[in-house]
Amino acid sequence: MTEWGPGGMPPEEFRRWGHRFVDWVADYLSGVGDYPVLAAVEPGEVRDRLAAEAPASGEPVEALFEDFRSVVLPGITHWNHPAFFAYFAVSGSGPGILGELLTAALNVNAMVWKSSPAATELEQVTLDWLRSFIGLPPTFTGTINDTASISTFHALAAAREQQLPEARPGGLAGAPPGRVYATAETHSSIVKAVRALGLGHDGVHAVATGAGRGMDPAALAAAIDRDARSRLRPVAVVATIGTTSLTAVDPVDEIADIAASRGLWLHVDAAYAGPAAALPRMRAHFRGWERADSIVINPHKWLFTPIDCSALYLRDPAALHAAFSLTPAYLETGEEGVAHNMDLGLALGRRFRALKLWFVMRYFGQDGLRAILERHLRLARDLADLVDAAPDWQRWRPSLFSLVVLRYAPAGMGSGRRDAVNMAIMEQVNASGAALVSHTEIDGEVWLRIAIGNIHTLEEHVFGAWTALQDGAAEAGQAGWADLAGPLRGVRRGRTTRPRPTPPEPP
Amino acid sequence: MTEWGPGGMPPEEFRRWGHRFVDWVADYLSGVGDYPVLAAVEPGEVRDRLAAEAPASGEPVEALFEDFRSVVLPGITHWNHPAFFAYFAVSGSGPGILGELLTAALNVNAMVWKSSPAATELEQVTLDWLRSFIGLPPTFTGTINDTASISTFHALAAAREQQLPEARPGGLAGAPPGRVYATAETHSSIVKAVRALGLGHDGVHAVATGAGRGMDPAALAAAIDRDARSRLRPVAVVATIGTTSLTAVDPVDEIADIAASRGLWLHVDAAYAGPAAALPRMRAHFRGWERADSIVINPHKWLFTPIDCSALYLRDPAALHAAFSLTPAYLETGEEGVAHNMDLGLALGRRFRALKLWFVMRYFGQDGLRAILERHLRLARDLADLVDAAPDWQRWRPSLFSLVVLRYAPAGMGSGRRDAVNMAIMEQVNASGAALVSHTEIDGEVWLRIAIGNIHTLEEHVFGAWTALQDGAAEAGQAGWADLAGPLRGVRRGRTTRPRPTPPEPP
Repeated sequence: MTEWGPGGMPPEEFRRWGHRFVDWVADYLSGVGDYPVLAAVEPGEVRDRLAAEAPASGEPVEALFEDFRSVVLPGITHWNHPAFFAYFAVSGSGPGILGELLTAALNVNAMVWKSSPAATELEQVTLDWLRSFIGLPPTFTGTINDTASISTFHALAAAREQQLPEARPGGLAGAPPGRVYATAETHSSIVKAVRALGLGHDGVHAVATGAGRGMDPAALAAAIDRDARSRLRPVAVVATIGTTSLTAVDPVDEIADIAASRGLWLHVDAAYAGPAAALPRMRAHFRGWERADSIVINPHKWLFTPIDCSALYLRDPAALHAAFSLTPAYLETGEEGVAHNMDLGLALGRRFRALKLWFVMRYFGQDGLRAILERHLRLARDLADLVDAAPDWQRWRPSLFSLVVLRYAPAGMGSGRRDAVNMAIMEQVNASGAALVSHTEIDGEVWLRIAIGNIHTLEEHVFGAWTALQDGAAEAGQAGWADLAGPLRGVRRGRTTRPRPTPPEPP
Repeated sequence: MTEWGPGGMPPEEFRRWGHRFVDWVADYLSGVGDYPVLAAVEPGEVRDRLAAEAPASGEPVEALFEDFRSVVLPGITHWNHPAFFAYFAVSGSGPGILGELLTAALNVNAMVWKSSPAATELEQVTLDWLRSFIGLPPTFTGTINDTASISTFHALAAAREQQLPEARPGGLAGAPPGRVYATAETHSSIVKAVRALGLGHDGVHAVATGAGRGMDPAALAAAIDRDARSRLRPVAVVATIGTTSLTAVDPVDEIADIAASRGLWLHVDAAYAGPAAALPRMRAHFRGWERADSIVINPHKWLFTPIDCSALYLRDPAALHAAFSLTPAYLETGEEGVAHNMDLGLALGRRFRALKLWFVMRYFGQDGLRAILERHLRLARDLADLVDAAPDWQRWRPSLFSLVVLRYAPAGMGSGRRDAVNMAIMEQVNASGAALVSHTEIDGEVWLRIAIGNIHTLEEHVFGAWTALQDGAAEAGQAGWADLAGPLRGVRRGRTTRPRPTPPEPP
């Protein structure tokens, strides 16, 4: 083994295998539509095919590559597949993958400015580009985290720091119980963040929603005011633009009025839908978000940047800084006049995540990115039209972004059987490997979700999924109860849980 | 622009640029020793050379690559450089980089088992390999986070969940103030985690240390018992094996006795030193760590896996599960008998980080990894011998792992001037670009740190740094006070802060 060379690997070996891997990636992504979307393995099957211990002696890359193809690959659910419609797409692009290669090679840790100035400054510049692209004013400062869950956690940590200053020295013990306001449609990561921050399971107040599942501002105001009159301390409101289950939109502008008049922190979760703000015709859904204290948007979702890359924007990073900087106040401006990433969050180590986003935004350009977003919105609109024209199908409205929520609901079919039939349709489509869809519940009833947003997705894939759903309906519609009982069981179980589990989504 | 192909990039374009980038990486890593270690740019210089907005139209990869080389690269501090000795190495290897390429291409999100079974199971298998490699019993279950900061946060969240069960519904308000015990040498991320968890700035009790800067068990026991008699609630003890500043070792076995007898959670931070446990002769430093409730070790540090990859091991993941799973208890075993990554932490999105670690462990094998670790330990030993033999130099002892802490201290030089001279030596060495070292303070006095652990580091680099330090001493030793005032200023400022800032380290 050569110690010198690319990380303990002889240069020619790295070069040879690098080329082979690049060729494999090019072939894989060109033909990913030929794989079954969903991994067809049983639990434990991958594990059982792997050695129980690391090898004593090193193995040739040939052996690794062979096992990668024969053991790992069959256990992969292909998020790259153009018919992956189950969750909001996490959809990497060619330039993003090339950026990741360079990031891995440079392998810098941008914890402080000096430990890699370009990584720190490129992150600032690229997040400025993204901010401008989605129409947010320059008053917002961005920072990159791995996931929206972590971004949201940091936003709410800053909110807690601002709203419960008496807890700073001694902790939350002795301080009033804090409350965060969000709807039941809000992403599960908000509940997790609130618990992690020490506000407890009761720390989230579930605000009532209107017909479109957006937050009811009157209910929000009433809840805050009632809590404020008691011994509780309202801390933050979380408004979502494009919820996980139904892409519902909370009325951010009205919510901002309420948060501002009560002096609360306003966090906007636009992890999925955020990029759509780059389209002028979509800006109405984002009205008021520029009044938020913090906004999360995930380039690794609908902006074709390999996972993980979540952008957290702050109107004033001081509260985040106060929560996470260990440097005393009189040194906070920094003797070099530079920002240190480590002061903006829990993680000291910082991967150079901005490089891939920079590559993506330059390669496609703003116009190119808008064209892909428009294509996805058009595909969703086209599918919605087909569903609306099909007599035995129903569609959930409104459908504001690139998600279509639908169900097979022929006249005269009881709701219990309808749930079972739709679950059976989903199982059949997913088991076929031709497409992957998911389900959700609305008022306790089953609906199916087709989430469009993969960079590879074209008309044929959306229409193919629609055909598969109709074929599934033709079959499941005839099936007896016994055949439907299996799929239904999952739903019935799900219903017994409170809070209702939203389908897991990449945050 | 072709929509189909590898992520919106025509296959032949991806292939061509992929090959060029691989060639660049091979050349870069083969010749990284020729770059200045520290980026020689002024704050804002990189930013000023970049466009203020994303381009409207897409740009060719040629343009991206050109800017990467001419704008980004000069602003990179080369963590790959064999003379990067400033912080514990974050040192990627060839197989790790190749693994990252495949991870970026697959781009899966392993939030639940089904969303990528191979990613979930390969993580379990690889962490079992690592667990066995470092001699931990099979009772430990691993999970991968991005950084040790985040791993530690999760460990302490689990501890809080276990030790303050009354806070579960209503939050910490009304519960007794929790306390975490650690020494002043403990990594800054422990303080950050405790604050984030709502335990406040007073939430960490700084336990006194002995001469080698390891925790004093008697002081620990006294502090816990005193707190327990008051209204405080002892929650967890954090013991470190290989502290950031001096690689001190807390006596884990004795600490485990104290934690066990009081029913507290014991977390062991072995983020840097953990891999040394794979060497039988080093196991003594790890005595008792198998009694911990949680252990963090970072493969992205001293195990040649590209950043980020931090392994968190739990003796019983139930507390972590209780803190972060939103699934009700009666469903916790899972209907498929599988684990879901999303139940083990804050982040729902999960990058396929295990693949690179799997590649690294297979390519080098256990013997190969041990050989690199032994080389680093030998280099540290050799440097220590040289320092010990140099009449005007002092070395901090003990030096148990691969860090050498030293200072220029000729007889008769006052402590104020000695601090200034050592800062000047460091500045001179770092400014030369030939090596990068850092400083720390012991009892308020300046010492220099040479942290060995980069996979590229050979004898010539260590001895070169030693020569550069001696040259620096020859020059700075003659310098007047005026020339020394600049470097010293940073130290004087640092001294006024409490708690004393430890040098930032990749967590």
